[in-house]
Amino acid sequence: IPVLNTNIRIKLPVVCFTWQIAMIILFGVFVRYDSESDAHWPETMIQNNITSNTENDFYYRYPSFQDVHVMIFVGFGFLMTFLKRYSFSAVGFNFLIASFGIQWALLMQGWFGSLDPSTGKILIGVENLINADFCVAGCLIAFGAVLGKVSPVQLLVMTLFGVTLFAVEEYIILELLHVKDAGGSMVIHAFGGYYGLTISRVLYRPRIHQSKHLQGSVYQSDVFAMIGTLFLWMFWPSFNSAIAYHGDGQHRAVINTYLCLAASVLTTVAISSLSQKTGKLDMVHIQNSTLAGGVALGTAAEFMVSPYGALIVGFLCGILSTMGYIFISPFLEKNLKIHDTCGIHNLHAMPGLIGGIVGAITAGGYQAAGICVALAFGIVGGAIVGGILRLPIWGDPADENCYDDEVYWEVPEEDEENPDSIPPILEYNNHMIHKQQEM
Amino acid sequence: IPVLNTNIRIKLPVVCFTWQIAMIILFGVFVRYDSESDAHWPETMIQNNITSNTENDFYYRYPSFQDVHVMIFVGFGFLMTFLKRYSFSAVGFNFLIASFGIQWALLMQGWFGSLDPSTGKILIGVENLINADFCVAGCLIAFGAVLGKVSPVQLLVMTLFGVTLFAVEEYIILELLHVKDAGGSMVIHAFGGYYGLTISRVLYRPRIHQSKHLQGSVYQSDVFAMIGTLFLWMFWPSFNSAIAYHGDGQHRAVINTYLCLAASVLTTVAISSLSQKTGKLDMVHIQNSTLAGGVALGTAAEFMVSPYGALIVGFLCGILSTMGYIFISPFLEKNLKIHDTCGIHNLHAMPGLIGGIVGAITAGGYQAAGICVALAFGIVGGAIVGGILRLPIWGDPADENCYDDEVYWEVPEEDEENPDSIPPILEYNNHMIHKQQEM
Amino acid sequence: IPVLNTNIRIKLPVVCFTWQIAMIILFGVFVRYDSESDAHWPETMIQNNITSNTENDFYYRYPSFQDVHVMIFVGFGFLMTFLKRYSFSAVGFNFLIASFGIQWALLMQGWFGSLDPSTGKILIGVENLINADFCVAGCLIAFGAVLGKVSPVQLLVMTLFGVTLFAVEEYIILELLHVKDAGGSMVIHAFGGYYGLTISRVLYRPRIHQSKHLQGSVYQSDVFAMIGTLFLWMFWPSFNSAIAYHGDGQHRAVINTYLCLAASVLTTVAISSLSQKTGKLDMVHIQNSTLAGGVALGTAAEFMVSPYGALIVGFLCGILSTMGYIFISPFLEKNLKIHDTCGIHNLHAMPGLIGGIVGAITAGGYQAAGICVALAFGIVGGAIVGGILRLPIWGDPADENCYDDEVYWEVPEEDEENPDSIPPILEYNNHMIHKQQEM
Repeated sequence: IPVLNTNIRIKLPVVCFTWQIAMIILFGVFVRYDSESDAHWPETMIQNNITSNTENDFYYRYPSFQDVHVMIFVGFGFLMTFLKRYSFSAVGFNFLIASFGIQWALLMQGWFGSLDPSTGKILIGVENLINADFCVAGCLIAFGAVLGKVSPVQLLVMTLFGVTLFAVEEYIILELLHVKDAGGSMVIHAFGGYYGLTISRVLYRPRIHQSKHLQGSVYQSDVFAMIGTLFLWMFWPSFNSAIAYHGDGQHRAVINTYLCLAASVLTTVAISSLSQKTGKLDMVHIQNSTLAGGVALGTAAEFMVSPYGALIVGFLCGILSTMGYIFISPFLEKNLKIHDTCGIHNLHAMPGLIGGIVGAITAGGYQAAGICVALAFGIVGGAIVGGILRLPIWGDPADENCYDDEVYWEVPEEDEENPDSIPPILEYNNHMIHKQQEM
Repeated sequence: IPVLNTNIRIKLPVVCFTWQIAMIILFGVFVRYDSESDAHWPETMIQNNITSNTENDFYYRYPSFQDVHVMIFVGFGFLMTFLKRYSFSAVGFNFLIASFGIQWALLMQGWFGSLDPSTGKILIGVENLINADFCVAGCLIAFGAVLGKVSPVQLLVMTLFGVTLFAVEEYIILELLHVKDAGGSMVIHAFGGYYGLTISRVLYRPRIHQSKHLQGSVYQSDVFAMIGTLFLWMFWPSFNSAIAYHGDGQHRAVINTYLCLAASVLTTVAISSLSQKTGKLDMVHIQNSTLAGGVALGTAAEFMVSPYGALIVGFLCGILSTMGYIFISPFLEKNLKIHDTCGIHNLHAMPGLIGGIVGAITAGGYQAAGICVALAFGIVGGAIVGGILRLPIWGDPADENCYDDEVYWEVPEEDEENPDSIPPILEYNNHMIHKQQEM
Repeated sequence: IPVLNTNIRIKLPVVCFTWQIAMIILFGVFVRYDSESDAHWPETMIQNNITSNTENDFYYRYPSFQDVHVMIFVGFGFLMTFLKRYSFSAVGFNFLIASFGIQWALLMQGWFGSLDPSTGKILIGVENLINADFCVAGCLIAFGAVLGKVSPVQLLVMTLFGVTLFAVEEYIILELLHVKDAGGSMVIHAFGGYYGLTISRVLYRPRIHQSKHLQGSVYQSDVFAMIGTLFLWMFWPSFNSAIAYHGDGQHRAVINTYLCLAASVLTTVAISSLSQKTGKLDMVHIQNSTLAGGVALGTAAEFMVSPYGALIVGFLCGILSTMGYIFISPFLEKNLKIHDTCGIHNLHAMPGLIGGIVGAITAGGYQAAGICVALAFGIVGGAIVGGILRLPIWGDPADENCYDDEVYWEVPEEDEENPDSIPPILEYNNHMIHKQQEM
């Protein structure tokens, strides 16, 4: 197995150490507890006429936060384990970049959002943790487009710039334009989707077919991916309601998202079955398109769209997303040279746009400005970051080593001594076959 | 591999589309937000002398709801992945029928329960979402009896009728008879269990042994199933407390269920070990009978049964359920022609009956009426629905294709080009063996 | 395969039954609901001027409890599934001993902590359930050191004594010495770690290398283990905040743990990559050392350590824990004859000590007394219990059968008739190879 420039023994540790030290210094200068997480909270309570600890924002938000946290680390991580020999990277690199991203997001979103004017400090509480997780979601979406084709160092660079762009874009959309987008259809999904797709375009590999034998699933990896799908699907109501207004706002966002996602499942199954001669279902569709309704309702989840309105959104998104996998993904790859490993165009980019449009229809046309800003940041930012990632210094894999954990991980070997595993005679045959292939 | 009538390319999409469109229309006519999820909630608060958003039912119920939601989609879904080649169907069809079922349940339970008398609308909030999940649980239990032997279209039909029967039965038991059953021992588990067992009886296949080579587990599938078991086990306290009274009622239901389940684990292990000559444990028992205590305490969870009372229930149910797998399941199959793939008789039907009896002992004999209604609806309903499912139009698999994902799913092939997988020389041997088997 | 004395058909059922019956009797004599889970709660509310059910401790604690519960059963259970043929035992025995342990912990912690002076009863509520889960965590940590080398009966004995020692040690540290340790750096992790390591030392097997072929992972088992890692990592903020003070205390403990864990991930990745010639990552490090920050912040999580302080702790612990796997574990095995299957020294014992020291630095030197007590109980208790476990009556596996589920479980055989599995010709080769090995 040829390994070209993929030794990351210096690069990866240097990036991890220097960036983590930078985080510590910046947190030391800028970040403090907010009034509800500070030990002076009891005094603040009296000043604010708050009569009970139950009024602490922690109790409104923490269960939702934990659901979102599971989506980020288990949901996104396991959704990407579907490749036959890339599960370590899927779940491991997801873990790495999310852990860096949430720290950088607390700083970037703090500077743009919750900077205390009198002290110049960023004051953080549970809502900031949720927002940091949201911000990282955008980068994890982008990861899906380049899954298997980049090094962990490139992923960290993508995350550094992705979080930076996200925080600025979010500030413009939510604070300057006063667009509503509590579940992030535009801010998270459309931005993250087009950011990842543009990077994938810039990094296009004409000879990626050399790794084609690894670019599919095996039975067990598809079951692992369903863990990701289901935790995303189940907790999406928490995602769309986590930073909605206390009380009826959160309550309504949950109901709408719950209904919308249920409808997506039925239409995804219908189109998936229709797309095969014998009516068989395709795991790729079930793993991804069932989630499209949650994405599309991100903007409008807390609006009074009414229960049947939520069902209609889910109905349409299941259809469009599944058809995206059947028709649009091959088109993008063949004609626009955009290779999209996880199909984020169908799961995030397109449903995110639909969500923005739904929001514009229900809440007013000024919402459309948000779509434009998200798209512009995704595409322009992605083009610049893609250019940086093309530099031949990041340790990315050769075309014939894509989608292979062997490049960046110590992968356990099947053991000859183990009577339960494949015996030596077969190993011998394997070697013979390899030799023949090499000839 | 002969495939008889299992092409569902028209049937499945038609059912999914028409039923989902029907849901949208019916939701449009009937379903609205309730006062706590409606944007008028702040005004309602003032009218009702509620002083804080924390009083919104959302904050009492949402964490429990999410736990129940995980039980429905990950718990039930993964519990059924234990078969060696039926994991896609287990988790995928569970996902499909639950997604349809929760919509239909909101309507059915609404018409029978929360119809606003002045407007004729169904007003929904978080408690309705929990109840819809509960209702679907009954159908997923029934799924366990027929796992591997029916088509997804049949499962949708089972769910349509199952939810309908459930809503009527629940109305009679809880509203007309004023029987208490917050965790659904009778309403959910006994009903769902006997509904599924009766359907399985009607659909009995004398030649099911032709698929015997697929009717077992492999090592990895048993580990996947433990994901289901553990999420069900851990969150069962939420299941039994989710719609209990605020405050001490919910609190006590959690304590009782937690203790009862712990006791079930020890006695399940004891009987499982006793049942083998060498004292080895059987994964089937650990995966299922450890949960029996949660089922049996469904009725009485919020009663003052006292902590040791909960332990006694768990102690007995672990024993009875495990002995059910050892003695009763073979008896049912041999003598009554009831084939029960997941052993729902031992996990749901029998413990559900015990739960009803525990409730009758602790809360009064009128509770026994609930048992009779649940049984009658399960058995009579199951007989009728089983008859409908025998019509030769639903695309069910041939006897030799049961328990096989290949029939309804695009299953990834082990790739010859992949050096990590089985090499061509072995594939060749495989073909030879197949040929021999075919001769 | 020689099987020596591992028949547990009498031992295991006898222990399970007698201990469970003992639990029922002791609960009957001692355990009652506390005021907030008792049906008299509404009257108590009026006496205590509590105006709302939301003030019931249940609503403050229950979401955290469920997160901790997931850590105990899925987190610890799946973290230990990494061995190639020991996943049933990892997740199954974890389930068994935790289910016994939580019952015994409610009694032991009750006698030492929440005994009602007027009635002599132990009054339990949701906080007791959390504390019981915490107590069991200490025993599950110890399980990690001896994983694969002991019988389930030995594990139950370890848990019986472990919980007993824990309750006394906890009482001395928290109640008598008034040391603070809400997340249990000393009480749970240092105690559990040294308890397990000492037992492993006493049970040292000089010929454990005879099972060396099973003492590693395979690809799928490493992915299963990541389920455990991630649920532990995500919910650790709940672990460290679950019994912190209501309001800002819980809020701050969450923020600190979240940040600390994020920093651990980056430095773990850095050291793991540095440790290999080609910079490849090692799954063992990612699965374990990423969690070290959560352990180390157990004592100080709710202190005003400030966000950057939390990052520094995580930064250092990721480094130290990973270096522990590289340097200290081999040293302990070679020089001190301590074989530590899961590396609990690096994940729990050492970070737990660091946590105690961090607490002593930030809260005052009297905290150091807690470290000494935890160490003494772990080492002395472990030595005594290890001695008991050396008695030749517990059914432990022979040296050549360690790490093998076959000893205690009915393991499904790969089926010759299944065309998807390994065909007969290969099975034949397997038999030949076995014969050769036996000669």
